[in-house]
Amino acid sequence: MVRWEPGAAERLRVAAMALYAEQGYDGTTVAQIADRAGVTARTFFRHFADKREVLFAGSESLEQVMVEALVSAPASAGPMEAVAAGVLAAGEAFAGRRDFSRQRYEVVSATPELREREFIKMASLVTAFSAALRERGVAPARALLAAETGITVFRVAFERWVEGAEEDPVAVIRETLTELTELTS
Amino acid sequence: MVRWEPGAAERLRVAAMALYAEQGYDGTTVAQIADRAGVTARTFFRHFADKREVLFAGSESLEQVMVEALVSAPASAGPMEAVAAGVLAAGEAFAGRRDFSRQRYEVVSATPELREREFIKMASLVTAFSAALRERGVAPARALLAAETGITVFRVAFERWVEGAEEDPVAVIRETLTELTELTS
Repeated sequence: MVRWEPGAAERLRVAAMALYAEQGYDGTTVAQIADRAGVTARTFFRHFADKREVLFAGSESLEQVMVEALVSAPASAGPMEAVAAGVLAAGEAFAGRRDFSRQRYEVVSATPELREREFIKMASLVTAFSAALRERGVAPARALLAAETGITVFRVAFERWVEGAEEDPVAVIRETLTELTELTS
Repeated sequence: MVRWEPGAAERLRVAAMALYAEQGYDGTTVAQIADRAGVTARTFFRHFADKREVLFAGSESLEQVMVEALVSAPASAGPMEAVAAGVLAAGEAFAGRRDFSRQRYEVVSATPELREREFIKMASLVTAFSAALRERGVAPARALLAAETGITVFRVAFERWVEGAEEDPVAVIRETLTELTELTS
């Protein structure tokens, strides 16, 4: 019988992030994370496959949110407008989570294994955006360029947001998109 | 005493690429590469640290060529124009090597270890471009966005070139840059 544990996943996420920041990702064990969160290792494994997945558990639903926003862009929107809608949806999902996002960003940046996993996540986003643009009738080569450019904006804006002073991720994404237009015009 | 072996490095490169294409990267040994190139394993190791570096030996000089072209762009050139000069210099370096580049692209794409190495190479290019733009007086945040965007164009154009019909990599890069401007305007 599974015991009801309110917010165990979120507690485990916060505990893991704190431990990764304090003592490094490599030096942290699942037992320590469970302990800090006040649950058993068994509970940990009910929520996450391993200590890496604590940091990536939301990736799939984030991708879904982003792709849905791209797909829902008005039919009149060009490829980059649709891509921008997808990236801005990620910004809305990150709102209010800057401290957590900064900690996560620092841990991922410092750990090759996590950087690799993050890279795969970004490649998956590019593939999903590109496919969604083709569904909108965009030619494959152009769809890939728009998707790659959009995810580049997403990465750069995310880094600006966690390292900068602006609290609102949506504002940072809008600013980055505007700057890209200025740069390339 | 080092025996003079004309073009041993190039022969090793061609032999390695042929073997990677025939039997996969993981299934190929240094002994097989040396054998195919008609040299000893000892000669192999005089030229390359391991079988991975056969595919990445030119990376540093390519980066140098690209950064020099960026640095040499006229003072009146904006950030993206300077970045474009850097990317176009890579195109010139690749001219006439499409078959080799396609084979390399296929091997790298099929092998996680090589994809990771290629990713590190691209990250290094972004860092170098970004630093060179800051030297030109571009603000750090804008320099990073321009560098990231330029390397995205480089990756997309390279893929279009090896998979497409156009022989001239410079033409493909120009076309991709123009398309980016259209997309973002």
